[in-house]
Amino acid sequence: MKAVIITIGDEILIGQVVDTNSAWLAEELTQLGIKVHRIYSISDSREEILNALDDAGKIADLVIVTGGLGPTKDDITKQCFAEFFNTTLELDNDILNFVRSYFNQRGVEMPKANEGQALVPKGGIAIKNKNGTAPGMWYEKDKAVFISLPGVPYEMKALMEENFFPMIAEHFNTPKIFHKTVLTQGIGESSLMEIIADWENSLAEENMKLAYLPQPGMVRLRITATGNQLEELKQKVEEKVDALKAIIPEFIWGFDKQKLEEVIGSKLTECKKTLATAESCTGGYIAHLITSIGGSSSYFLGSVLSYANEVKMEQLQVSPVALQVHGAVSKQVVEQMALGVKKNLKADYAIATSGIAGPTGGSEEKPVGTVWIAIATPTKVFSEKFMFGNHRERNIRKTALQALNMLRKEIEI
Amino acid sequence: MKAVIITIGDEILIGQVVDTNSAWLAEELTQLGIKVHRIYSISDSREEILNALDDAGKIADLVIVTGGLGPTKDDITKQCFAEFFNTTLELDNDILNFVRSYFNQRGVEMPKANEGQALVPKGGIAIKNKNGTAPGMWYEKDKAVFISLPGVPYEMKALMEENFFPMIAEHFNTPKIFHKTVLTQGIGESSLMEIIADWENSLAEENMKLAYLPQPGMVRLRITATGNQLEELKQKVEEKVDALKAIIPEFIWGFDKQKLEEVIGSKLTECKKTLATAESCTGGYIAHLITSIGGSSSYFLGSVLSYANEVKMEQLQVSPVALQVHGAVSKQVVEQMALGVKKNLKADYAIATSGIAGPTGGSEEKPVGTVWIAIATPTKVFSEKFMFGNHRERNIRKTALQALNMLRKEIEI
Repeated sequence: MKAVIITIGDEILIGQVVDTNSAWLAEELTQLGIKVHRIYSISDSREEILNALDDAGKIADLVIVTGGLGPTKDDITKQCFAEFFNTTLELDNDILNFVRSYFNQRGVEMPKANEGQALVPKGGIAIKNKNGTAPGMWYEKDKAVFISLPGVPYEMKALMEENFFPMIAEHFNTPKIFHKTVLTQGIGESSLMEIIADWENSLAEENMKLAYLPQPGMVRLRITATGNQLEELKQKVEEKVDALKAIIPEFIWGFDKQKLEEVIGSKLTECKKTLATAESCTGGYIAHLITSIGGSSSYFLGSVLSYANEVKMEQLQVSPVALQVHGAVSKQVVEQMALGVKKNLKADYAIATSGIAGPTGGSEEKPVGTVWIAIATPTKVFSEKFMFGNHRERNIRKTALQALNMLRKEIEI
Repeated sequence: MKAVIITIGDEILIGQVVDTNSAWLAEELTQLGIKVHRIYSISDSREEILNALDDAGKIADLVIVTGGLGPTKDDITKQCFAEFFNTTLELDNDILNFVRSYFNQRGVEMPKANEGQALVPKGGIAIKNKNGTAPGMWYEKDKAVFISLPGVPYEMKALMEENFFPMIAEHFNTPKIFHKTVLTQGIGESSLMEIIADWENSLAEENMKLAYLPQPGMVRLRITATGNQLEELKQKVEEKVDALKAIIPEFIWGFDKQKLEEVIGSKLTECKKTLATAESCTGGYIAHLITSIGGSSSYFLGSVLSYANEVKMEQLQVSPVALQVHGAVSKQVVEQMALGVKKNLKADYAIATSGIAGPTGGSEEKPVGTVWIAIATPTKVFSEKFMFGNHRERNIRKTALQALNMLRKEIEI
């Protein structure tokens, strides 16, 4: 069974907005065993919308369209749906009352423009949008199902999860697909491919596929199996994953959507230990990653972000001599930062970073990209120097991932 | 002149990767006056790639293809290019030497798999990729230009910026497009539309377009003008922006790609004042935004992230009585946090946050989503309470933007 996703909006085609809806929809459809065949991004133009609907209807059983449902003039998706399905727009009183109450609940009178959002093409099913004012819609034409959704991500997601996914599951009956992604760190794509060549060939023999997905600082390996029995596919894939673990145990740190900060959170929770960070060049990014995990307050105590040297001395007791002799970006200072925050916040573990994230601040001796990372554990402190290049954002991201992974290896359960 | 972007990769169609390349390319092409007509995302399948190249070649003057150039088996873009252009792959010795030296510079022998990356379809121009091993490629067929790029974003961007954009500019001669985006805060899309209705109508009369681009906590308004003279278009748009400023002065805080943290950085730099943050529920996210701006070390001193109450008391001198009587999420505590970090770090301004980001930790009196934000200035401290909902990530993001905007209004130049 094939699906096509169409995202409508000039803002995507001029690059003002990154289309995250498609990725979310694609992932969810894949989980349902529906194969996304193509993603189109097109403009708010009648001709483009009609052409895309026509193309998509020819190749797909399910067409999901997002965007172009706002109350403003540039939004014309509904008019195009009416034209495509040879029907007319009619006022849906149920939707109108719902939109009016949406505004009333917020203590606001419904603006006149929003009345138009209760106009829907005849012949389909309109679904109320509890998070906004544009309804979702379901139509069928020549055996294909067309779903129209608002472009605002959380409105779209709620409509899919609560209404359309169950409707899709009931309407279609499809083969199953199972994916598993192995997360590796510390080895490049090409070297990895050489080491696991035989294993990779054995996948093809059993009708499984492998994809290499490199990211800054890590390579992800996605294994895909297709068939009728989800349980059987899972088992086949898990067997292959076990075989891979035996080949490259030292490089695998997690699976699927796991995040390093999650793995660390689980380990700290399990051994009932606490963490603090002292960040300079990462400016709070490590703490932000750690606290993005719900429940992190049970193991994360806090941080001292010491951008200024004075803050390093006064809040972390870094010695003025170390700063003067070795500079802020040095083994001595970063280790003192880690020990300082560990002591002051009474933590079991601490991470400290000090580096030159760029674009300015580099010198011949310490060029932009130089980063020191220290880890303090209940029994020791150690540090390592890295060169993470002169792209500020990537530098901060790489430093954070490296630091988290260094910590992960040290937490003993 | 029309362009089509094709991104190749199963990882996009199963939703494992968000396609950010298209947005970047679309934005850059738009700046060059090239209109992106469509974006396709397709799988690493021969049939799909050939179909998409064929479709795109029929409607576009310029076709930009990213992805599928890795050394591994799942990458087949080059084979498909050779087939589409009726040619064969041949070894480019120049590229081979370059790839080999890429590995040698990193002290590594070139893995055998990477030799294949020097195979390129005959009849085009292969361009060395200084950040990776897959070359960029340029082909012409039936008056359309086809460019193939690696999918790794920074490799792709460097090749476009340093090589292909200049080549495109030389090869084509196109009408100009000018966009300007007005950033507003504190008013919803529908209400905004009613207030600026006359102004919006006046745009259409002069052949300009308006788009509403809502985001959590803000609405962006994009004005687009098309013509031959870029300077003339700029002037027409700027006149309309000035007219808009007169209608809604209180809601406009910036333009185009500006970020609140940038606006704040400029204001602090101009008045030579410093900033510190004391964050609880935002967990370092505000500091991360501020330090994502290069040069922020000249006005940002640091932060104390006080997740634990003990850290609030010991590092920020929040009174135990206030914590006990009012709780951590309260006016009293958040104002003490702001004053504490301002004093300890000797800053001129301070932001403090304390709230319940969720998903757990709420109570009847203080449900998940309750957030207190305090701002301390050289002369005063004040705070406000917000309800930002129970989605952890959105809650942190909304809190940070609101806090930055509250600070922005207080910085006097």
